[in-house]
Amino acid sequence: MKPALDGLLIVDLTRVLAGPFCTMLLADHGARVIKVEQPGTGDDARAYGPWFGTKSAYFSSLNRGKESIALDLKKAEDRAIFEQLLEQADVLTENFRPGTMERLGYGWETLHARYPRLIYGAASGFGHTGSSSQRRAYDMIVQGMGGIMSVTGEPGRTPVRVGVSIGDISAGLFLTCGLLMALFKRQQGGLGAKVDIAMFDCQLALMEYFIGRYFATGEVTGPVGSYRPAIAPPFGVYQAQDGGLIIAAGNDKLFALLCQAIDRPEMAEDPLFATGEARKDNEGLLAQRLNDALSAHSVRHWTEHLVAAGLPAGPINRVDQAVAHPQVAERNMLVDVDDPQVGHYRLVGSPIKISDAPDPRQRRAAPALDQDREAILKTLSSTSSEVRA
Amino acid sequence: MKPALDGLLIVDLTRVLAGPFCTMLLADHGARVIKVEQPGTGDDARAYGPWFGTKSAYFSSLNRGKESIALDLKKAEDRAIFEQLLEQADVLTENFRPGTMERLGYGWETLHARYPRLIYGAASGFGHTGSSSQRRAYDMIVQGMGGIMSVTGEPGRTPVRVGVSIGDISAGLFLTCGLLMALFKRQQGGLGAKVDIAMFDCQLALMEYFIGRYFATGEVTGPVGSYRPAIAPPFGVYQAQDGGLIIAAGNDKLFALLCQAIDRPEMAEDPLFATGEARKDNEGLLAQRLNDALSAHSVRHWTEHLVAAGLPAGPINRVDQAVAHPQVAERNMLVDVDDPQVGHYRLVGSPIKISDAPDPRQRRAAPALDQDREAILKTLSSTSSEVRA
Repeated sequence: MKPALDGLLIVDLTRVLAGPFCTMLLADHGARVIKVEQPGTGDDARAYGPWFGTKSAYFSSLNRGKESIALDLKKAEDRAIFEQLLEQADVLTENFRPGTMERLGYGWETLHARYPRLIYGAASGFGHTGSSSQRRAYDMIVQGMGGIMSVTGEPGRTPVRVGVSIGDISAGLFLTCGLLMALFKRQQGGLGAKVDIAMFDCQLALMEYFIGRYFATGEVTGPVGSYRPAIAPPFGVYQAQDGGLIIAAGNDKLFALLCQAIDRPEMAEDPLFATGEARKDNEGLLAQRLNDALSAHSVRHWTEHLVAAGLPAGPINRVDQAVAHPQVAERNMLVDVDDPQVGHYRLVGSPIKISDAPDPRQRRAAPALDQDREAILKTLSSTSSEVRA
Repeated sequence: MKPALDGLLIVDLTRVLAGPFCTMLLADHGARVIKVEQPGTGDDARAYGPWFGTKSAYFSSLNRGKESIALDLKKAEDRAIFEQLLEQADVLTENFRPGTMERLGYGWETLHARYPRLIYGAASGFGHTGSSSQRRAYDMIVQGMGGIMSVTGEPGRTPVRVGVSIGDISAGLFLTCGLLMALFKRQQGGLGAKVDIAMFDCQLALMEYFIGRYFATGEVTGPVGSYRPAIAPPFGVYQAQDGGLIIAAGNDKLFALLCQAIDRPEMAEDPLFATGEARKDNEGLLAQRLNDALSAHSVRHWTEHLVAAGLPAGPINRVDQAVAHPQVAERNMLVDVDDPQVGHYRLVGSPIKISDAPDPRQRRAAPALDQDREAILKTLSSTSSEVRA
């Protein structure tokens, strides 16, 4: 049973988050990822706390299963090694500021002329084209500019950032899709291609119905809190005894089921709440009545009870609660690492489950800087250089 | 110049968001996507307002470039057509509740036995395995359970939902990656495979450093607002004359540049702010001083001024402001649709830019229900059934 990307070789210049998230997905599914790092410091994320022993938890959770070689791309002997790697590689990835690769002598025109089958994937803030290409970006900048912050937060209050770096992560996901599309094209008889991903573009692509709504109506939405304005209530966060409980019962049938489950069957018949429109008109009163009933028990009680009744409901889990859910282990979404440097720890598994492909519980640790130099150089010096299909 | 996925045939049973987001990406890059819909109503999203004329803006923005045929998978004659489609298809996608395909007689075992090269992609709330498989999910439920809500919102206040349906969209993205990985494997000589994506799993995969941090320290983070707790300030939202301005100047060099740019060069030397540690210790005072200086001008003024100085800075754009940014048009991130049903409108383009592949400004509209029936039936009856490589 071989992994889906068995046989694929990625030479990976990416650092920190967007690029490493992409190449970790590729490594998780069997690609060989050779991380080419700056001698001395390596990937900036190696210095980000907190720590598994002496090793960055952040770096470890984005680079498992990769190999590392330290190369200074401004030195002739290291460039020669890098170029030998490119001879064999299927994909080269980087997330430098646009122009960096050109200054190193590895711009796309040059690469494509020398390695016509090589696929080149770049992730940057604003992309390799357009008047803002050189503008600096961080996750929060593109979250602000693309609109996702403007709809996130409490209604009537200042918008907030999405708590995770969705600007970087979504770029990493679109880059993964783009590289795999370019591989498909190459396998149909094409050459290598450049995949150019901009974090800012990706933010627009995530904006779902907000942009369609704006073009259809001219309407601009502010922070939406935890409610879905287009859906009839109850659909949002309600108050159980010990905290917020999410209930998504946006149609009459689910509402009736909910009223039964909380022992208020009469509410479903009440003209104040009998239709979606009525519930929308009396949203505040509805929430008050539901909160009254829900205050009798805990979030855990209600979750179990409502889910057993077939209702979409659930808690707002903290991280510790999220990873403790039985489904997480049952889906192999926590994997084990026995790190030769710092011992055992756990990481999040891959959410891509492919039949007839391994999904090992045990994963290789993120590499120490330059740890695979010898093995990699041996690969290169091997006379029978592998010819890829 | 052919699109990357030219020649690929997708038979698509997905509805609403997660699945259609995936198959739109595939269609945008040249796959032929045949949407198989319930006769009479079709995809539920066809009924979601607001409207481009008589057509759902939501549906239109997730189904452009696809074809539609209405088939009742409980009727023999329609099943025969569906099975002829599967004979030719590379990929079948669905986002029903687990078990639905089995009840229709199209579970994975059956499909794989009859169409060994067919790749089958399923997106569901909790996946096709595990004890919670049958549990109902909506975007907000998995946002709550996976932890992303717990870190989104204002510090000390109730967590909020990410404003867009990141639970669905991320599942659509991971499904796209999974299908393309399975295609790669098949092209290396393998058979079809099943790709099983759970929205809940995907939420954990987005949790970035929070889960690593928890395993490393036991520390659980609440809503983080618009700040990055691990990074030295100024890194967050500050107040210009007319609203919030994002500044990401997390190191000494950028901070000094910022002090110059706002004409407060002395702040960079002030022992209160001279190091990252000092700025962290005096975060409130720092914000006050910056806000004082920034209050002299508008967000637009400061954005232009700070970006020109090489600083990562930007506004919190509403949707109308986001789509008006020049880079959006320059990167072809707004495309035009001349819809034969309702006329012209604009949609968000694809953020995956691949060299030597078309990225047309003009896109085909989302289909009317069953509009391609005749053309699809003609394809099937064609005697020279295409043999795929």
